[in-house]
Amino acid sequence: MSTTLLLILDLAGIAVFASTGALVGVRKELDVFGVAVLAVMTGLGGGVLRDLLIGSVPPAALEDWRYLVVPFVTSLVVFAFHPTFGRRERGIMLLDAVGLALFCVTGAVTAEEAGLNVLSSSALGMLTGIGGGMMRDIASGRVPVVFRGELYATPAFAGALVASVVHHEGWSQWWYIVAFGTCLVWRILALKRGWSAPLPPGTAHV
Amino acid sequence: MSTTLLLILDLAGIAVFASTGALVGVRKELDVFGVAVLAVMTGLGGGVLRDLLIGSVPPAALEDWRYLVVPFVTSLVVFAFHPTFGRRERGIMLLDAVGLALFCVTGAVTAEEAGLNVLSSSALGMLTGIGGGMMRDIASGRVPVVFRGELYATPAFAGALVASVVHHEGWSQWWYIVAFGTCLVWRILALKRGWSAPLPPGTAHV
Amino acid sequence: MSTTLLLILDLAGIAVFASTGALVGVRKELDVFGVAVLAVMTGLGGGVLRDLLIGSVPPAALEDWRYLVVPFVTSLVVFAFHPTFGRRERGIMLLDAVGLALFCVTGAVTAEEAGLNVLSSSALGMLTGIGGGMMRDIASGRVPVVFRGELYATPAFAGALVASVVHHEGWSQWWYIVAFGTCLVWRILALKRGWSAPLPPGTAHV
Repeated sequence: MSTTLLLILDLAGIAVFASTGALVGVRKELDVFGVAVLAVMTGLGGGVLRDLLIGSVPPAALEDWRYLVVPFVTSLVVFAFHPTFGRRERGIMLLDAVGLALFCVTGAVTAEEAGLNVLSSSALGMLTGIGGGMMRDIASGRVPVVFRGELYATPAFAGALVASVVHHEGWSQWWYIVAFGTCLVWRILALKRGWSAPLPPGTAHV
Repeated sequence: MSTTLLLILDLAGIAVFASTGALVGVRKELDVFGVAVLAVMTGLGGGVLRDLLIGSVPPAALEDWRYLVVPFVTSLVVFAFHPTFGRRERGIMLLDAVGLALFCVTGAVTAEEAGLNVLSSSALGMLTGIGGGMMRDIASGRVPVVFRGELYATPAFAGALVASVVHHEGWSQWWYIVAFGTCLVWRILALKRGWSAPLPPGTAHV
Repeated sequence: MSTTLLLILDLAGIAVFASTGALVGVRKELDVFGVAVLAVMTGLGGGVLRDLLIGSVPPAALEDWRYLVVPFVTSLVVFAFHPTFGRRERGIMLLDAVGLALFCVTGAVTAEEAGLNVLSSSALGMLTGIGGGMMRDIASGRVPVVFRGELYATPAFAGALVASVVHHEGWSQWWYIVAFGTCLVWRILALKRGWSAPLPPGTAHV
């Protein structure tokens, strides 16, 4: 995948995730700098984790100033206009799904390019997608939403798996759109139709 | 220690820890994929942390597909048969103690082989043992059980210290069994006899 | 900055942060080893995170035994004499501010010396300062105090920014005192005067 395209997609995903972090911070009534710290952590967390695990240090987030500026500015915008964002909960959910789909693909491709096998690249792509949101929820004292597997882990793993196979087999880059779409469509369908993965035997579906 | 033996012991410890993670997930009523994510994190967390800290990247957990498959399959089995596992709480505690003893020894030996000094290797062996459980508890919103020092930190450090000294002095590998036993026996005795380490002065023992 | 001076300042900051971790552990009524684990994590967390992110592994905390011994001994002292420390809450807050100021400067300088740009070095200096406290609070189930941005993130970033610029421009090392003072004075003024950063629009200041 071209480096410029990867960068743009990465920054777009970071902005989206940062905005979800900022919204959580606003709801916890953090001050503007607390909101910024939480937003930057949410936006960069997944990618930094991925870079640490493949030994690409310093991580991209510290090599390139845009990686810090994008989530920071995003957090200020959300802070200032949060009632507008808050009312658009459905829009946020959609953006969050787009961010997840972007990250699982770029994460899997980055892992493949670092020489990992297909299974590990898929796992790392999934982790890139869910890592930031997990840090956001843990740091702000919520049970991580990513543990609702049918909404996060599964579509992210599916998208990352498709992307890893595409890279591994050397198929045309257009196929990455299929990887992206797999995660996005799966996630949105799960959300809209209220899909839910099996609960532990003996537990009532609520 | 032979590489194959280290691998087998490592995988055994991972399966054991993954099953404790899966049980916590089942009790939190996560769906099957959420349970899998929590279980894999619990099983691999300590070893990944160790590998990151000694600069062995990508960590073993991403280099070898068995490291991902073992905790994943374990989580599915626990998910499906959790009432059976849940009733065997005492068995789980025993398995958990075995996992801790395995990880503190393999963690310390890995750190020694990376050239760390005896004290650091012991600390890292302990961290390998308690890291996964700490992540499990933090991610699922419980106060980490590893902070009950007399049950976790102390026996794990003791076992790791013995293993580090054995490696450092180049003693026969049979001595690793002593390291393993130190942690295991200590932990089980602490559990059975209700040993408790000193509480802060002025705090009533409850 | 001379290596010896950096080491001494680093160990001083570690001791201070470890004592705050130990106090939290004592209040949570952890036993002596649980207190030690929490204290060591609080003392070393920020620096280990910094070292991981700049690829300096094994981190200083594992290379040099003093990094492990200092927070461990600190935790024992706090454990034994905690009523004395607990009564000196104001003294602790002051020490905490000194620790933050030390870490943001040493963190930024270490990042600069690893070749990061000024913005990234400032961010990493800030993270070095707030990382340990964040881990302490997350691990012990409190909402991280570092999210009160006006008391932590902002002064730490300001101090780290001054230190990064000083290093980048090659100014006299005496200027590091200005960096240190920027963080310390800002933090103390914020504390004493009850400064608070803007809250989200529509939120009542409480």
